[in-house]
Order: sequence, then structure tokens, then C-alpha cells
Amino acid sequence: MKIDILTLFPEMFAPLEHSIVGKARDKGLLEISYHNFRDHAEKARHVDDEPYGGGQGMLLRAQPIFDCMEQIEQKNPRVILLDPAGRTFNQTYAEELAQEEQLIFICGHYEGYDERIKSLVTDEVSLGDYVLTGGELAAMTMIDATVRLIPEVIGKEASHTDDSFSSGLLEYPQYTRPYDFRGMQVPEVLMSGHHEKIRQWRLYQSLKKTYQRRPDLLVGYPLTVEESQMLEQIEKES
Amino acid sequence: MKIDILTLFPEMFAPLEHSIVGKARDKGLLEISYHNFRDHAEKARHVDDEPYGGGQGMLLRAQPIFDCMEQIEQKNPRVILLDPAGRTFNQTYAEELAQEEQLIFICGHYEGYDERIKSLVTDEVSLGDYVLTGGELAAMTMIDATVRLIPEVIGKEASHTDDSFSSGLLEYPQYTRPYDFRGMQVPEVLMSGHHEKIRQWRLYQSLKKTYQRRPDLLVGYPLTVEESQMLEQIEKES
Repeated sequence: MKIDILTLFPEMFAPLEHSIVGKARDKGLLEISYHNFRDHAEKARHVDDEPYGGGQGMLLRAQPIFDCMEQIEQKNPRVILLDPAGRTFNQTYAEELAQEEQLIFICGHYEGYDERIKSLVTDEVSLGDYVLTGGELAAMTMIDATVRLIPEVIGKEASHTDDSFSSGLLEYPQYTRPYDFRGMQVPEVLMSGHHEKIRQWRLYQSLKKTYQRRPDLLVGYPLTVEESQMLEQIEKES
Repeated sequence: MKIDILTLFPEMFAPLEHSIVGKARDKGLLEISYHNFRDHAEKARHVDDEPYGGGQGMLLRAQPIFDCMEQIEQKNPRVILLDPAGRTFNQTYAEELAQEEQLIFICGHYEGYDERIKSLVTDEVSLGDYVLTGGELAAMTMIDATVRLIPEVIGKEASHTDDSFSSGLLEYPQYTRPYDFRGMQVPEVLMSGHHEKIRQWRLYQSLKKTYQRRPDLLVGYPLTVEESQMLEQIEKES
């Protein structure tokens, strides 16, 4: 995958040198290029200006972004503008982006950007219902969530199938050594070595946590017969 | 505000040197300390182990996190664990955290963590419905959204009252110079100098965008008489 990032702050992207994204780059599965659109401003490094019609703060001008985009080699890319008013990012969206050959991220900053920049864009995306000082952290977060889904990036294929959201349910509680930590013990079933009972306990815990915390995720979730029965029991108990 | 971050990757936090968070630190409004809990592992730097009951991946052990927490000076802090199964972060949550004196973030990594770590935690928080390789980007994003709401951090008090979500609506389109950019023109009303008409146009655009993209935000939004009339017109037109 090729990722191009338009930003005024390329030095903010240090986190992408680390962890799984860094490893994907080392393996040659991912190439990331940064484009500081300040270098493309016609008037000496002039990237922002006041809003027409008045108002607080400064807006990103269209010209440096347009000229910067024209110098990026494009192979039918998804062009993503980070904007709190965009489509909310989620795991399904990450899976969709993980299929693409090229992603281009436009990171805004200051109070906003000239609306005409949107004519370059295929996806307006929001990380969630909160406001950030710029698009950089949002872009890095989306890249992290997306890149780990590219086949071969996480060594063991199976290791994200149990994640929250990947199965459609929240993840069950997990424990590691020691058995007793400061008086808190691991549930007996996990020590039993009985694989089928462990599977059932985990599924039950996942369903229960999802039911209690995020019942919205159960709307449209295709329940198996086993899951329906467990959910009936959970409803009774609560 | 004092922020303490428990992480295996303190070097990932470079973005917090920049932008508004960096400025808040320079102004003395914010102090951030990093704590690498690998330094607190009893057995030589042993921070992760296999899950009881079997399964892919490694889990963070409780001991290094507990011992690290005990060495942090605590003044009634909010202790935040980043977890996709947690409460979903949003603007109201950011406003709540901006009131606190101390925030402690525990950043997981690998496939998860020992459930007993949660006994240290006041808030399990999710950035959104997606899975990240670690809690670091989530912590930075939450810190960015929160710190910009601390009084005195953004110079002009007014400059975030028009943001998406702060008013309860998505933001209206904005434009800056030039008037005509590659054949795309600024809406006439913004050139009129007529403040009241501009205000009405912006409110209408905010309502329309929210109605079209995020009708969920209008549920429970207290409409003024003017807004009700505008919304009726928007519904008719669509």
C-alpha cells in the first residue's frame, strides 16, 4: 500500500515509525510519503487566510493543497479529508481501506479549510464526535487501524479475529500469570484445560459485556442458536 | 493540569511536542510525564505473557503496571485505560476531562491486558469502534481534544465555540480568498457584508448538514423557533 499525507507538520508523524506500522514499512508492505503543502504556497508560505463573511480563526487556503495534489502520483486513490463532520470511522471502514492500493490523507489545521478543497476528496472522515486541533492524529489513528488489517502485516493471521468489533462483539476478559495477584484470582474455568468450557465462558462474557455496555452493537448482529440461548440467560440475570 | 502516561513506547508521543498541546506546555498550563512500566517489571523487563485458557497473542501483566502506578504522585486523578470496549469518547467527555487536575493514561499494547489491571482504573475509554495496535495514539488524541478546552490554552476564547459538536451541530461551510478559485466561487451572501444574513445562512447550512449526515445529533438538540422553521424548510426541500 502507498500512503501520501498532506500536512503542515510532517514531524508529528513519528508514531508511524514504531509498532506494527513501522514493521509493515520495514517489510516493504507499506510506503508512506509526506508532503508539506506549505512548500506549494504561491505567496511566500501563505497557507491560511481569514474567512469570508467574518468569524474567528484562520482557514486553510485551497491553492497550496490543489498544487500539492497535482504533484502526487495518483493510482485511483481514496482521498481522505479529516473532518469532524465526515462519515464516522469504524472497523468496517478500516477493513474497506485495507483493500486499497493508495490512500491520500489531507490533514487540516487551524479553524478549518476552504470548502472548495472538498472537490479533491473522495472521503470526508471523522474519527469520532470530538474536535482535534488538526487532522494529523486522526490520520495516524486511521492508518494504524487500517494497516494492521493488511494481510501479512500481523504475523499470525488469527491474532485479530478475536478483537473487539472484528467478531461484532466486545472482547471477553483475559488473564495471564500469576494465578493469584494481590488476592485477585483467575476464573477457575480458564485453569481447567477444558477447551469447550473455556470457549463457552468467553463467548458468554463477550455477549454479556456487549449487552451491558454496547447494546447497539447487538442490533443486526446475527445470533447463533447458542448465542440466543446465552443472551436469554443474560437478560434474565440482569 | 498534570498528565501521567504509562507506556512501553514513550518515544511515540512526539506529536504532543507540537501544536496546541506543545504551546500549553510551554505556557506552563500543562505538565506531561511519561512512565515506561517496562522499568518496573520484576523479572528482567518481562511485561507480557500468554493468556490463561489459551489463545493467540500476548497480554500485558498486572505487576509492572501496579508497581509503576504506586510510584506516581496521585491527587485524586482520573485513571484512564484505553480499551475498544470502553465508554466512547466524545466532546462532552473531553469537556469533563478538561476540568480535572490530574489524568493518568494506561496505554495497552499487544493483544490485550490482564483483567486485574482494571481495578486501578476509573475510566475505560474507547476512541471509537475500531481496533488500534496500542493505546498510545488513542491517548494522544484524547489529550489533544481535552487540552484545547482548558481555559487560556486557545488564545481567543471564542475560537472553539463554532466547532462541530460544541454547538451541537456540524459546522457550516467556510471560504477564504480568492473569491474565484479555478471557477469555483464563494457564495454571494458571504461577500454581502450583511451580518444578519450571513448568520442566518450559516445556521441554515449547519442545520442542513447535520440533518443530512448526522440526524442522530438532532435528537435531543433544543431547537429555537428560528431553527425549527429552518428545519421544516430543509425537510421540505429534501
